[in-house]
Amino acid sequence: MTEVLAYLGLGANEGDRERNIRTALSSLGAAPGVRVVRCSKLVSSALFGEGPEQGEYLNGVAELATSLPAPALLSICRALEVAAGRRLPALRNHPRPLDLDLLLYGRETIDTRDLIVPHPRMWQRPFVLLPLRELGVDLALMPRPVRPLVVQDPAKFAALCSHWQAGACTTGLVPTMGALHPGHQSLIRKARAECDRVLVTIFVNPLQFSAGEDFAAYPRTLERDVQLCAEAGADAVFAPEPLQMYDSDFCSNVAVGAAAMTMEGAIRPTHFQGVATVVARLFALSRPHNAYFGKKDAQQLAVIQRMTLDLGFPIRVVECPIVREADGLAMSSRNVYLAPADRIASTVLVRALRAAQQAFASGERDRDRLLQVASSVLLQEPRAELDYLELRGEGDLRLLPAGPVVLGRMLVAAKFRAGKRVVRLLDNLSLAEPSEIGLSAGSVLFQGDRP
Amino acid sequence: MTEVLAYLGLGANEGDRERNIRTALSSLGAAPGVRVVRCSKLVSSALFGEGPEQGEYLNGVAELATSLPAPALLSICRALEVAAGRRLPALRNHPRPLDLDLLLYGRETIDTRDLIVPHPRMWQRPFVLLPLRELGVDLALMPRPVRPLVVQDPAKFAALCSHWQAGACTTGLVPTMGALHPGHQSLIRKARAECDRVLVTIFVNPLQFSAGEDFAAYPRTLERDVQLCAEAGADAVFAPEPLQMYDSDFCSNVAVGAAAMTMEGAIRPTHFQGVATVVARLFALSRPHNAYFGKKDAQQLAVIQRMTLDLGFPIRVVECPIVREADGLAMSSRNVYLAPADRIASTVLVRALRAAQQAFASGERDRDRLLQVASSVLLQEPRAELDYLELRGEGDLRLLPAGPVVLGRMLVAAKFRAGKRVVRLLDNLSLAEPSEIGLSAGSVLFQGDRP
Repeated sequence: MTEVLAYLGLGANEGDRERNIRTALSSLGAAPGVRVVRCSKLVSSALFGEGPEQGEYLNGVAELATSLPAPALLSICRALEVAAGRRLPALRNHPRPLDLDLLLYGRETIDTRDLIVPHPRMWQRPFVLLPLRELGVDLALMPRPVRPLVVQDPAKFAALCSHWQAGACTTGLVPTMGALHPGHQSLIRKARAECDRVLVTIFVNPLQFSAGEDFAAYPRTLERDVQLCAEAGADAVFAPEPLQMYDSDFCSNVAVGAAAMTMEGAIRPTHFQGVATVVARLFALSRPHNAYFGKKDAQQLAVIQRMTLDLGFPIRVVECPIVREADGLAMSSRNVYLAPADRIASTVLVRALRAAQQAFASGERDRDRLLQVASSVLLQEPRAELDYLELRGEGDLRLLPAGPVVLGRMLVAAKFRAGKRVVRLLDNLSLAEPSEIGLSAGSVLFQGDRP
Repeated sequence: MTEVLAYLGLGANEGDRERNIRTALSSLGAAPGVRVVRCSKLVSSALFGEGPEQGEYLNGVAELATSLPAPALLSICRALEVAAGRRLPALRNHPRPLDLDLLLYGRETIDTRDLIVPHPRMWQRPFVLLPLRELGVDLALMPRPVRPLVVQDPAKFAALCSHWQAGACTTGLVPTMGALHPGHQSLIRKARAECDRVLVTIFVNPLQFSAGEDFAAYPRTLERDVQLCAEAGADAVFAPEPLQMYDSDFCSNVAVGAAAMTMEGAIRPTHFQGVATVVARLFALSRPHNAYFGKKDAQQLAVIQRMTLDLGFPIRVVECPIVREADGLAMSSRNVYLAPADRIASTVLVRALRAAQQAFASGERDRDRLLQVASSVLLQEPRAELDYLELRGEGDLRLLPAGPVVLGRMLVAAKFRAGKRVVRLLDNLSLAEPSEIGLSAGSVLFQGDRP
């Protein structure tokens, strides 16, 4: 049988720590099918995480060449822990004379009840990552975490991102408010295709809701969201509590001028400050290489792009196409609020935009006549209460002068009412975007932003 | 003679680029006292910097073991360039069949008319840094730049910081508005003592001046500043133009609430927004490990600490003690504006603070009586027009209730007028700070902030 390289995390904080580790390594080396190739420096550090008061850990990593299957290697490790005096059952974060963790086994991923490889917590642990780097392990080439790590503490999130980046991994950030749908998953998949490590944030950001808006009622479905993140290939999920994001003395605010003043900014005056502030905080914490946002919230995207440039974050903001239901409605976490009749009526938004798009394709170039084409479709739907309909410059969403339009994006927002509940829906489309015709029901469309 | 390891930058963008480089390496290897140990991959990339249109460069780095002194090695390189057909004089950024740069010579630093080692521009050049890393050179252990690099472009500044950090260097940032004095130099020296690489920024930030303030008249002394940065041990100076920091569409703004509302914030309502915005931008661009600020602007420091926490920059904000003139005046770039009589009168600020401090040392604890002690000193100086005198909590500068004070910092601001010019001076002192007594004229005091 051929040998694979495996990496073993070594730890001890009871008894003669170094002797416990050295003894275990000699026993390992004496086991058939195992060679200890080399061992990193052993370094002393405090307990990582919460636990009863105890002595510092001595930690390191050993590189093994082994012909044993991973579970057999694990059994030997467990036996050596017991031989070193470890009490069973082992309580988490209690002192122990010897702790052996199988971190990596070749480039395999293993996900069984007894064993997960790569070790799920290794990515957060400097006392593992530094020795791995000392041994020349290139984290960027190592297998990804089997399940997404879920991190709540902003400092741990920042540290995780730093560790990955220090290991030469490119990182992609997908900020969300949870209640994930295929639109979000398309962002995660895009990040997955472009980056070594993908981080999804799930945080219903109170700063971007005004009094009277749906902050309390906003859907919160963390467990399901983590599952959807896993499916789409996320490596970590950052899901902090509001007080972890904003402590009681929090008083800073990032505001973006021009881009945030009209349309959504006129209707929700503090909304984009809340968005810019939370995104600046997520960027500062994680400093990803790329950050992924959906084009559905086109004005939000313009605000974030402006903020990123203005504050100088060296982060590529990646625009991702709108994902639509089979009937054309742009996917949104708020669509679930729609009453059945409104759900049917809601397609008026995309129908209006497509009507303008078709007029453009047929040669119409006048700004106001294009708006009128869309407007006349919207007027046919009494359930939709129009907030605004605008034709603006692509990308920066600047005001366009009256007269002929070379290129533009049409944006629409409308309210639907079901009893006391008001659901606001947004949509937008580039005039130059190819219109989809003849959709089959049930298919999910990825609508390209560029021809 | 013992051998040293030297690293040679290899480049060519005319003729058979690879052959030119390989031929030079064989000739080098044949020279007495030179061995070519190994060579990195050769990679093609576009010209770095401005120059006439030309083909891509092929670049790499060779590791040499040599017993020759550095100037002799350089002479061989120059001869090989000529042999490869290089025209003399060599025009900067013009195409060349062969370009050899001595990057590193052991761990020596050399600064002569013909040769500077480490090569001054290597830190900005990915096509040098990546091959150096491929050859296992640890930049953190390499000698520092001989003279500070001066960078104007924010993107290059960000890239320089990233290169250093990717090379495992810790970085310290010292943001200034230039017109440097020994107070600034104490910040740079502190950074020098704590970090592998020290970055000073020099930027008179228009955002933090209001109309009618001294933005246009603020002293600008870049050449002298770079010299003072060099003396204090800076590795790079970032000195952008206003339009490089804020393009014409710039419209973002970072505001800090409570900490920025009173004292300076009440007198200069948009001042701290300008400060928070520029510091957030510098932090986002460079993401240093540490950032150094003087305690002289105590409220500015509190605002920056709050902003750093709120936005989540994982940066340690380091408070540095006030540096004073021999007579006690806190050093400031604006002190040069003072008319001679005002310069003498200006010591009233520190005298008032020290009087309160002495009263505290003698057992006085009542907030208002401590303020009165300082106030009575200030009243004796008619040239000083008091803006405010406050006793506040240490660190966060919170309002203290009337009654006994356990610990506090007294802050004072006053105007001095010479003709039409108004000079505002600030000072502050912790009540618990040891008072300096019996200073000799001419000595520069480093006043400790903590007993």
